[in-house]
Amino acid sequence: MVPEINGKETKKSKLIANPNCTTAIGLMALWPLIQKFGCKRVIMSTYQAASGAGQPGMDELKDGTKVWLEGGSPENKTFAYPLPFNVIPQIDKFQDNGYTKEEMKVTWETRKICGLPDDFPVSCSAVRIPTIRAHSEVIIMETEKPVDIAEARKVLDAASGVKLVDDTANLKYPMPLTATGQYDVEVGRLRKSLVFGDYGIEFFVSGDQLLRGAALNAVLVGEEMVNNGALKSKAKA
Amino acid sequence: MVPEINGKETKKSKLIANPNCTTAIGLMALWPLIQKFGCKRVIMSTYQAASGAGQPGMDELKDGTKVWLEGGSPENKTFAYPLPFNVIPQIDKFQDNGYTKEEMKVTWETRKICGLPDDFPVSCSAVRIPTIRAHSEVIIMETEKPVDIAEARKVLDAASGVKLVDDTANLKYPMPLTATGQYDVEVGRLRKSLVFGDYGIEFFVSGDQLLRGAALNAVLVGEEMVNNGALKSKAKA
Repeated sequence: MVPEINGKETKKSKLIANPNCTTAIGLMALWPLIQKFGCKRVIMSTYQAASGAGQPGMDELKDGTKVWLEGGSPENKTFAYPLPFNVIPQIDKFQDNGYTKEEMKVTWETRKICGLPDDFPVSCSAVRIPTIRAHSEVIIMETEKPVDIAEARKVLDAASGVKLVDDTANLKYPMPLTATGQYDVEVGRLRKSLVFGDYGIEFFVSGDQLLRGAALNAVLVGEEMVNNGALKSKAKA
Repeated sequence: MVPEINGKETKKSKLIANPNCTTAIGLMALWPLIQKFGCKRVIMSTYQAASGAGQPGMDELKDGTKVWLEGGSPENKTFAYPLPFNVIPQIDKFQDNGYTKEEMKVTWETRKICGLPDDFPVSCSAVRIPTIRAHSEVIIMETEKPVDIAEARKVLDAASGVKLVDDTANLKYPMPLTATGQYDVEVGRLRKSLVFGDYGIEFFVSGDQLLRGAALNAVLVGEEMVNNGALKSKAKA
């Protein structure tokens, strides 16, 4: 389904609910594409940085990597296992359905933010990897309308908060290396899905979740609410 | 569809075709599940180690990480960009359809090995991450029969070359940290898919592709061919 613009809902409230960082980064690219092509299913696999666990997480990765390179055994206090040169397929606690809370946040918040039904099929695998900052995500969407990749690029190029980095001939695609410290979420590797044919799109995003996923997002939501008039009456009161 | 056992095909040839390492690792878990529940679609996102590029790849990651931690800029010769604390969503060359050759190998070889039709929907996003050894993969399969997770665990527990590591209550799941140096591919995080309902399963694998994905696999295929009689006549000749 192609949902209504979320801004209409936002006007009803004076509270800013800042989404989970993984969801926020993914939806910067997903929302323009959902509006263009409609949405039947979303599947996401994440490549999440140590910074998701704050400064202690980043320090633990850096310090542990040094220890590992010197032949020692890295300690782990912030993460369930040592993260240097490892992959940990768990972020937050496990739920009864086998998904973690981080994964369910992507499901719950994507439905909520995009105005999709409570049982809309969204699935995530949230995975911690040994990067310092910027989360990356593989996203696959089954669409309602046939996908045109040139149109998808146009839509994303015009979208606010998105930087289209999609020139595979010149090896340009999203990476933490380039997304770190940037306000905009990098989106690229756009292609028609081999599992959903004309009705599916696959792509890759990388975004600095210390910016887009946290404080910056709250400020931008607040600004948007002022600009669209939602906060006007309060400012006058 | 639930395909025929691949061993019947193998008997027709005396050549051992060793699959791509990413495909080999994923199929260790996928094949028993395909036989049990049937298969309509496969979606894979990979977390591939530097060792996929051989010793130069592993050295470049280790050396570059040291340089990075000392405040320098890592060089890159083997990889398209510096890999330390980065993510590179490209392995091998780009094809006309927007997928890389590594991604298409997963599509082509999964179809071939599992005896699935030439247009069977299999899709992969192949991503290089800063780990030394052992590839990890998020795998999502739409099935023909309803999925029972307890049955899926039983099937994988009995499968050759697979180590079931699926005890989330005790934070046991597949990781490069534990899969490295092991012959068996670790499989865990088994759960019903939120996008395919009763007809879908999601899971995570981690396997040492220097073993399972390469020489060990060729030896095991050869042994299997001797054991099932395919190479008997040649040995006598």
